[in-house]
Amino acid sequence: MKDFVYYAPTEVVFGKESEEQVADLVKKYGGHKVLVHFGGQSAKKSGLLDKVCNLLKQGGVDVVLLGGVVPNPRLSKVQEGIDLCRKEGVDFILAVGGGSVIDSAKAIACGVPYSGNVWDFYLGKADPECYLPVACVLTIPAAGSEMSDASVITNEDGDVKLGYSNAMSRPKFAIMNPVRTFTLPPYQTAAGVTDMMMHTMERYFTHDDDMDLTDALAEAVLRSMKENVFKVLADPCDYRARAQIMWGGSVAHNDLTGCGLSSDWATHELEHELSGMFDATHGAGLAAIWPSWARYVYKENVSRFVRFAVNVMDVPNDFTDPEGTALKGIEAMERFYHAIGMPVNIHELIGKDITDAEIKEMVRKCSRGGEATQGSFKVLYPEDMEAIYKMAR
Amino acid sequence: MKDFVYYAPTEVVFGKESEEQVADLVKKYGGHKVLVHFGGQSAKKSGLLDKVCNLLKQGGVDVVLLGGVVPNPRLSKVQEGIDLCRKEGVDFILAVGGGSVIDSAKAIACGVPYSGNVWDFYLGKADPECYLPVACVLTIPAAGSEMSDASVITNEDGDVKLGYSNAMSRPKFAIMNPVRTFTLPPYQTAAGVTDMMMHTMERYFTHDDDMDLTDALAEAVLRSMKENVFKVLADPCDYRARAQIMWGGSVAHNDLTGCGLSSDWATHELEHELSGMFDATHGAGLAAIWPSWARYVYKENVSRFVRFAVNVMDVPNDFTDPEGTALKGIEAMERFYHAIGMPVNIHELIGKDITDAEIKEMVRKCSRGGEATQGSFKVLYPEDMEAIYKMAR
Repeated sequence: MKDFVYYAPTEVVFGKESEEQVADLVKKYGGHKVLVHFGGQSAKKSGLLDKVCNLLKQGGVDVVLLGGVVPNPRLSKVQEGIDLCRKEGVDFILAVGGGSVIDSAKAIACGVPYSGNVWDFYLGKADPECYLPVACVLTIPAAGSEMSDASVITNEDGDVKLGYSNAMSRPKFAIMNPVRTFTLPPYQTAAGVTDMMMHTMERYFTHDDDMDLTDALAEAVLRSMKENVFKVLADPCDYRARAQIMWGGSVAHNDLTGCGLSSDWATHELEHELSGMFDATHGAGLAAIWPSWARYVYKENVSRFVRFAVNVMDVPNDFTDPEGTALKGIEAMERFYHAIGMPVNIHELIGKDITDAEIKEMVRKCSRGGEATQGSFKVLYPEDMEAIYKMAR
Repeated sequence: MKDFVYYAPTEVVFGKESEEQVADLVKKYGGHKVLVHFGGQSAKKSGLLDKVCNLLKQGGVDVVLLGGVVPNPRLSKVQEGIDLCRKEGVDFILAVGGGSVIDSAKAIACGVPYSGNVWDFYLGKADPECYLPVACVLTIPAAGSEMSDASVITNEDGDVKLGYSNAMSRPKFAIMNPVRTFTLPPYQTAAGVTDMMMHTMERYFTHDDDMDLTDALAEAVLRSMKENVFKVLADPCDYRARAQIMWGGSVAHNDLTGCGLSSDWATHELEHELSGMFDATHGAGLAAIWPSWARYVYKENVSRFVRFAVNVMDVPNDFTDPEGTALKGIEAMERFYHAIGMPVNIHELIGKDITDAEIKEMVRKCSRGGEATQGSFKVLYPEDMEAIYKMAR
């Protein structure tokens, strides 16, 4: 096991009436003039946006609105937010939405006090000295951005999708009301669960570390998500099941399930190019990549895949054939993805064949022009990335 | 399931070289002049105290020393710390030790800025408006105080042991080096594991709530502690096992294992009177009380005890006899306590018979003079407390 830092300071306010506390929470964490950042029409239609804004105003907090964040959030919107915050003298950013909105809010929060281009942080050219405080009212459980230190932004200039992590970006508070997730369509619900499970799986599949407490916590999260997704697909208004998934998405990505372990993140990196190129749903893209990644790498640590098969996927352990058990675990995961309406390859994801040229382009981006490797369970060079994309095509 | 707030902002710095960061961490969280608070000789003998003080001084942080904290930490020492901090102009409190030292530090931290008597907070007569920042270098995993919002102090004037919880008291950082726990004697190791398991069990045994993700996380923690304690008793220098226990003690008490649940805490309350009266080791006192508490209350929610028996204690589920399975789980816990050298009743704890008069006195204190109930799994009135003490005698 490795040394680690665990730091998850976000105050989670969870439950049916949690939104009522929004103004008090903003003031508690120092906000006076708030950028309320949101996505499309759903926050407006549901009445949540109006409710939050009214509560803030009643609480004596000034509100500036900026909507229009799209999935795979764009750098241009981030820049618009930075300009607006500077013009209006905003001192706090409240995201109302899911991971895209929160990621966009985090990017704005480090961009406002920075004299250079915020994209510098995502390129690894600089680190911010400070952030505006960020918080959120979560409506889509998936990305785990509500407690995480990470954000992912797409630069339309070249369709480049990059992530950046900084402890200062962790939201001050996260309001989570499972009722707000009742209206999520099945595809988005399933893609969200796929994403949150993958956040823990990226940490679970380690080459040579282990830490049995962390592993057991990870398996608890994965099993809970795997069970509860079927309950919410059967009954979208099942509060208890929606609640497990909403909280599970946070626990899966607040670093608890990675303490003491190396993490991998190759599946995420491979997927970023896919959703960057085809504007696919991130969670669905992960399901399209993971089985091929798994088959390509599992021999690096067969026992880890056996543990996953047995402890997470309920595959009977064939003690005479560890490789067979490991592969049955990957097959069981594919059956799970299909059962919740997720793809297991790129064709199922984008509805057409991907070309060799497109794969070359994704490899070029994923390897930062051939310069970078990805992953740690097995370190992936450009030729490995190409092989996995081709297995997954 | 219930609404909940989850807030565990402590920065955990975990690993073999973690102490090296102490000065940087103190300065990061605003400390300039630090009260280094500790217990007896072990921190001195091990060299840890000198190391921490030297690192602080080298980092430009002024140090004021106050040792002498004892198990079941005393109000008089807290008052001594408050006076010293005021006199010296201390702005940060660093506990070097286990739960008693951290609890004492928390009490000092809210007492320094308060014009009244710090005991007011423990009596529920007042709440502090602010705290000095508290942090710790943990040497004894048990109490979970390194991430919790709680502290327990004993007022020698009447031998009254009371707890107080406040979100502001959560340590800013916790340095955890499992190597520092290699020298813990077997009894203290086992009592520590008993205490940390009980922190989760107090949350796990709920009357009518459940939240399957929280339950699964709790079971992961309990099973990990239950396995690893035997490894460290067999080999006190087993780094990996010591590490699971050290981190498990924090996770067991940072509220993660209680999200969405009512908690009980009756066993803790009943035990506080026992260790208050006989100055017993808190963890051992919990083991002496819990089996009797469990047998007294299990019929309130048999299925919960069946779940514990099967999922934590590996008791085969007799589906035709839930009560029998529940009771077998309690028996299995008693066998576990004995296997790690813990008592399962008061006689085994204190080495003599407890008198009826002593029980009456404990009931009086535990019920705050007959005014208060304890617990929620089954609400305990004074007559229930008496019955449990007599079952456990």
